[in-house]
Amino acid sequence: MDFPCRPAAGPGGRSRDETASGQTMPRFKLTLEYDGRPFVGWQRQENGLSVQAVLEQAAGMLCGGTPLAVTGSGRTDAGVHARGQVAHLDLPRAIDAHTVQGALNYHLKPHPVAVLAAEETAADFHARFSATARHYRYRIVNRRAPLTFDRGLAWHVIVPLDADAMHDAAQALVGRHDFTTFRHSQCQAKSPVKTLDYIRVTRDGEDIRLETGARSFLHHQARSITGTLKLVGEGKWTRRDLRHALDARDRAALGLNAPPDGLYFMKVEY
Amino acid sequence: MDFPCRPAAGPGGRSRDETASGQTMPRFKLTLEYDGRPFVGWQRQENGLSVQAVLEQAAGMLCGGTPLAVTGSGRTDAGVHARGQVAHLDLPRAIDAHTVQGALNYHLKPHPVAVLAAEETAADFHARFSATARHYRYRIVNRRAPLTFDRGLAWHVIVPLDADAMHDAAQALVGRHDFTTFRHSQCQAKSPVKTLDYIRVTRDGEDIRLETGARSFLHHQARSITGTLKLVGEGKWTRRDLRHALDARDRAALGLNAPPDGLYFMKVEY
Repeated sequence: MDFPCRPAAGPGGRSRDETASGQTMPRFKLTLEYDGRPFVGWQRQENGLSVQAVLEQAAGMLCGGTPLAVTGSGRTDAGVHARGQVAHLDLPRAIDAHTVQGALNYHLKPHPVAVLAAEETAADFHARFSATARHYRYRIVNRRAPLTFDRGLAWHVIVPLDADAMHDAAQALVGRHDFTTFRHSQCQAKSPVKTLDYIRVTRDGEDIRLETGARSFLHHQARSITGTLKLVGEGKWTRRDLRHALDARDRAALGLNAPPDGLYFMKVEY
Repeated sequence: MDFPCRPAAGPGGRSRDETASGQTMPRFKLTLEYDGRPFVGWQRQENGLSVQAVLEQAAGMLCGGTPLAVTGSGRTDAGVHARGQVAHLDLPRAIDAHTVQGALNYHLKPHPVAVLAAEETAADFHARFSATARHYRYRIVNRRAPLTFDRGLAWHVIVPLDADAMHDAAQALVGRHDFTTFRHSQCQAKSPVKTLDYIRVTRDGEDIRLETGARSFLHHQARSITGTLKLVGEGKWTRRDLRHALDARDRAALGLNAPPDGLYFMKVEY
């Protein structure tokens, strides 16, 4: 395949819906899975390999080699994983979606990134701005023995955790709140007020799973919540302590930030 | 810790219950988990790193550095994983089981091998000869997209498989049969007659799981059965073809041998 390409935008650049000649370019919605361990995160950066850059390179291979812009539904930090990240991509000419998926996966091959699904979508679909809900999972392996298969894929917590207590306390965070306490100091969101739709904490043997969803999340919000709930799980914090931390609206009131290892971006709804 | 050690036996050596002076040495039963990807298999070999050698080195660190013999319930091939392999180990003096687990895990650290449980056991307990049942799982990821998290941890099959048909056909193998067809040419078992207690094939989304148990298995038996059932799953073989292959008692009648990637040694019963 060899035809004119639209180059990837620079950092922070937004994608365009049309070519310079005004011709509409078909837009594709991609559902992505990636193992975050080897990456500096989703976003293109100077200092290392990003998922976005790897995808833009692969997309470029569809049309002669110049990278094509790929826009994600949201960033993930270094070491954070995805099982259902969504991105969009404009191609300079019509290609059937099945071929797009296969060709991207072929060119992604050395990297642990896979296109689970590709579909042609409306020209006004935007992976980030059209999203109505995002879902995350956080995995804790709660056991004495070190991790083998799950190194970098879960948070290893040795002290026994009470998942029921974590679930109970977590309900204090559901709904609309000012989440300043649970926000990264460099978070770029305009408002710290977010509405958490649900948080569920369940245990299956040594595996503890936290599931949460919202229209959007603050930077580090899921990890900050998980880290603080871990303190509840080991009995150091009560549900009341958690509530006080939320009410403090102060990052200094945060209990603990969980490592990126256990975080999975599961699904985006539109 | 520094005290006299019993060195590891050479290849094929059996462990002894007593020291040269006739003093009984405490025996420990270890439950082990390992990611088989970096190993040449369970058994100690000249040509690469084995799980057994790594454990024997770690055990030796409990008593001054000379490796101690570790006897497994059975071998696993290169690239095969374990979630519940069992081994026994004789220590030259009494150490509480909790310390044994912790110290072994500490010394195993660079390797993806973990001691899930350690308990002191009877002197006549033998990881291999006392076993009454062994359980394996085989994982297939049945999807078009390449693997990310599961590279080397599952068999990636792109062609759609009918798990119900696989399950149905597999029932022809349950019970006492001459499994010569499903046996490695270099299998060292005295008899090819084995009794399969059960085989279950189930699907959960793109994940297909085969579970099987028996008192003991022939070399490559689980992988040979899985490979052949894959042919049934894609409609190339019928249950009758499978039955004919079994009745042929001939390795040449084997359909396909599944790769080691998806095989997990799950549990040993005593």
